[in-house]
Amino acid sequence: MSDQRPASAQVIAWAAIPEEEVLPGITRQVYHGQEQTVVRYVYNTGSVFPMHAHPQEQMTAVLRGRMTFTVDDPRGGPPRQIELGPGEIAMLPANLPHGAEVVGPEDVETLNTLSPRRPDAPIFDARERRP
Amino acid sequence: MSDQRPASAQVIAWAAIPEEEVLPGITRQVYHGQEQTVVRYVYNTGSVFPMHAHPQEQMTAVLRGRMTFTVDDPRGGPPRQIELGPGEIAMLPANLPHGAEVVGPEDVETLNTLSPRRPDAPIFDARERRP
Repeated sequence: MSDQRPASAQVIAWAAIPEEEVLPGITRQVYHGQEQTVVRYVYNTGSVFPMHAHPQEQMTAVLRGRMTFTVDDPRGGPPRQIELGPGEIAMLPANLPHGAEVVGPEDVETLNTLSPRRPDAPIFDARERRP
Repeated sequence: MSDQRPASAQVIAWAAIPEEEVLPGITRQVYHGQEQTVVRYVYNTGSVFPMHAHPQEQMTAVLRGRMTFTVDDPRGGPPRQIELGPGEIAMLPANLPHGAEVVGPEDVETLNTLSPRRPDAPIFDARERRP
């Protein structure tokens, strides 16, 4: 954490942030702000992110391709699927179990924000490189 | 606010959210989550967003075009300019005065998140339309 330094504005180029392959065919890049965590995902066609949950609200914007989220129904009904593509965002409430998969033949690129900041150790903090 | 309803996952199409012209040549669409506010901006060439500040941390992703933020220096130095384009994001700390303008001949489209949620009255809450 860098809370003891004055917080200055940052420009972060995704090309400068290491990719990690989190699951077969799914790569992730992470930047932690003070109040939110920003994640860029690339999903290859056919890749699947299994159901999981986290205590942060998740916003997902699809930059290219089409994807489906499978989401639990907080009212107790069966899980449902919501599909989205460019020009759309998904908002997933805190703690709601969800999974993701690619729809169709095109790779998917998304920009996600998790709010509040995900408190796990920063995978990469660009502030260390751009003082 | 809809805190008394179970929070379900939402897909929001920007095409379904009204645009407001907040300044000459600058339109905005807003969606309020529970933990963050998501804003899509389109800046026409030559448009300028004056210096301002807000208590939320701001993430700005440029989807097309190029823009410059003018940001105050929290250490007391002169304001500086940071330029960004597609493939880059800016992270602006809470309460940091900043302004924005278009660079070059192309309109600019950005996706912004403000965290935590901006508490002013929702301009549009898509949950009212997609239960």
